Amino acid sequence: MATHKLLLLPGDGIGPEVMGEVKRLIDWLNSAGIAKFETDTGLVGGSAYDAHKVSISEGDMAKAMEADAIIFGAVGGPKWDAVPYEVRPEAGLLRLRKDLALFANLRPAVCYPALADASSLKREAVEGLDIVIVRELTGGVYFGEPKTITDLGNGQKRAIDTQVYDTYEIERIGRVAFELARKRKNKVTSMEKRNVMKSGVLWNEVMTAVHKREYPDVTLEHQLADSGGMMLVKAPKQFDVIVTDNLFGDMLSDIAAMLTGSLGMLPSASLGEVDVKSKKRKALYEPVHGSAPDIAGKGLANPIAMISSFGMALRYSFDMGALADKVDQAIAAVLASGLRTADIKSEGTTAASTTQMGEAILKEL
Amino acid sequence: MATHKLLLLPGDGIGPEVMGEVKRLIDWLNSAGIAKFETDTGLVGGSAYDAHKVSISEGDMAKAMEADAIIFGAVGGPKWDAVPYEVRPEAGLLRLRKDLALFANLRPAVCYPALADASSLKREAVEGLDIVIVRELTGGVYFGEPKTITDLGNGQKRAIDTQVYDTYEIERIGRVAFELARKRKNKVTSMEKRNVMKSGVLWNEVMTAVHKREYPDVTLEHQLADSGGMMLVKAPKQFDVIVTDNLFGDMLSDIAAMLTGSLGMLPSASLGEVDVKSKKRKALYEPVHGSAPDIAGKGLANPIAMISSFGMALRYSFDMGALADKVDQAIAAVLASGLRTADIKSEGTTAASTTQMGEAILKEL
Ligand SMILES: CC(C)[C@H](C(=O)O)[C@@H](O)C(=O)O
Ligand SMILES: CC(C)[C@H](C(=O)O)[C@@H](O)C(=O)O
Repeated sequence: MATHKLLLLPGDGIGPEVMGEVKRLIDWLNSAGIAKFETDTGLVGGSAYDAHKVSISEGDMAKAMEADAIIFGAVGGPKWDAVPYEVRPEAGLLRLRKDLALFANLRPAVCYPALADASSLKREAVEGLDIVIVRELTGGVYFGEPKTITDLGNGQKRAIDTQVYDTYEIERIGRVAFELARKRKNKVTSMEKRNVMKSGVLWNEVMTAVHKREYPDVTLEHQLADSGGMMLVKAPKQFDVIVTDNLFGDMLSDIAAMLTGSLGMLPSASLGEVDVKSKKRKALYEPVHGSAPDIAGKGLANPIAMISSFGMALRYSFDMGALADKVDQAIAAVLASGLRTADIKSEGTTAASTTQMGEAILKEL
Repeated sequence: MATHKLLLLPGDGIGPEVMGEVKRLIDWLNSAGIAKFETDTGLVGGSAYDAHKVSISEGDMAKAMEADAIIFGAVGGPKWDAVPYEVRPEAGLLRLRKDLALFANLRPAVCYPALADASSLKREAVEGLDIVIVRELTGGVYFGEPKTITDLGNGQKRAIDTQVYDTYEIERIGRVAFELARKRKNKVTSMEKRNVMKSGVLWNEVMTAVHKREYPDVTLEHQLADSGGMMLVKAPKQFDVIVTDNLFGDMLSDIAAMLTGSLGMLPSASLGEVDVKSKKRKALYEPVHGSAPDIAGKGLANPIAMISSFGMALRYSFDMGALADKVDQAIAAVLASGLRTADIKSEGTTAASTTQMGEAILKEL
């Protein structure tokens, strides 16, 4: 059995708690002889700042480079609101994405039937929702230069951020979306603001070309990101795969996640390019939810998004699709049994702590 | 009685139809001696392109500069998808905003009780919703330079857009938001992405300073634009005034509009700075909805957003608040009577065409 190297980066807030439940699962997989994971742990975000005055240490970056997959919790919190910009908690996550070239962020937005009523949307609008946002993750306004604040004198400052996209960056994220669509409902919706942004014009042009040249069998639609956002709120089930840039993807995937009523349940995968020689790809898996500092340390956090992110790692990094399916089924079974963490509690269900939820999923497995 | 100069720019798609109903209202106000409007009409967007191969002619720009207020319909449509970027329909609108320095875009998102069920959100989430998005309209990534597509050779192109904000731009839009909040529930929520964008850092810093210095009596909250978008979907009624930049404002105001179930009902105002001498400000009023080319020319369009935008003109440009109130009341009364255009039709209501709806509102007045 091959040994897989995992780097666990729990981060801040509820990160360590939900990571604990993934650790429990990994330990069991190892001891039951189902898989062989070697785990190491590092610091990222505020916890790295507290320890080393950086958002991630060079040592942990080196470990990240070596790992077969990174399992990431969450970063940030008001405690670090005043730290210098370069070492703010988010910088650690952004550096991991950039240095590991994790350009493809897959964010499924699935509405668990048992939770459809937790959505602010009407049941009929979200029941059965199953879409994936494919977000470009290493380009755009997140990383473009110049990115500066300049003092102009007279009490005036000027802030600049730069959105940059090259053809190849749009092509490769497009391919990820089209490949994914082929395994799903075969439809891709590309979103940009071509009526205002030159990057939107290029995005539209390149998506259209990749589609025509390599994926004519997939349906491709284009929508302006603002009306796309509207449509997501109005009738989300019309979509299958949505492909969009880093900033629009940030906004749209959060909104899609919120629609499902299952924010504490949604995983994500950030993937690099497949290496031609080793056939491996760098990858980081993290829940869509944040570090929720207000409920940290209280055993209230929902570990499902984190466990489900580990499930994505099994599927995308370790070719253990069958085991990943079992993890998904265990989650569904536990939900069906009526067990709920505080975020998804409703009448007639049984309250569970983070640990109780983790243990129940493990037992089901 | 003072004479007010209006420039009507119906634009494309359903623009001319809904503008027709405003024209009907203006004619009546004139003939009844309630007000004195002098109207002129111009071309913008695709219709300007078809006539002059530009998105707005210099002649119409000159009229716009002279007008006391511009009443704007909508622009764009698939017909002009292939026209050169510089003369695409939207360019006319963007030029009006920029050249007239209409930096403050006010977008109320109000849920009409009679229409609460038209929302994809649950009634309890949106009933009674009454928020305003104050969107910065002449800065940010819409207008920053460089804004280019460069051929890099080897089949590669590079697209660049630039987000730029200066202190004074953030200060003045902040003041508009704080002033507005004072007349409402006294709460402003500022949204940016300070964890990723330098313009977000400056935005946050300047809003905080303006608040502390000039509006300490107003409650100011800050939210990251992605989680702000989430909150807007989850529990929109927590907000009063949201102030944000041009691109986030584009996304967030469309989403807020869609929440209400009343997209065809929502007006907007785009305002310039008040001139110290004349005490006047340039202004453009337009519905939040687009040109809806699919239903154009069929008498299906809902004229309420357009009429309501004219109502905002009465209020903000002509100090006719009482008359504006009457327009709002007439709209509410007609809705209460059960009259509905196709977009808001539901069981037990009476179908109305664009014209019938406009006439009914006028009759009510
Ligand atoms: C934490 C932050 C930097 C990050 C982002 O903006 O990408 C987060 O919002 C996300 O979506 O993963
Ligand atoms: C038509 C387009 C240029 C415009 C914008 O992006 O600002 C529209 O979406 C709006 O919100 O008024």
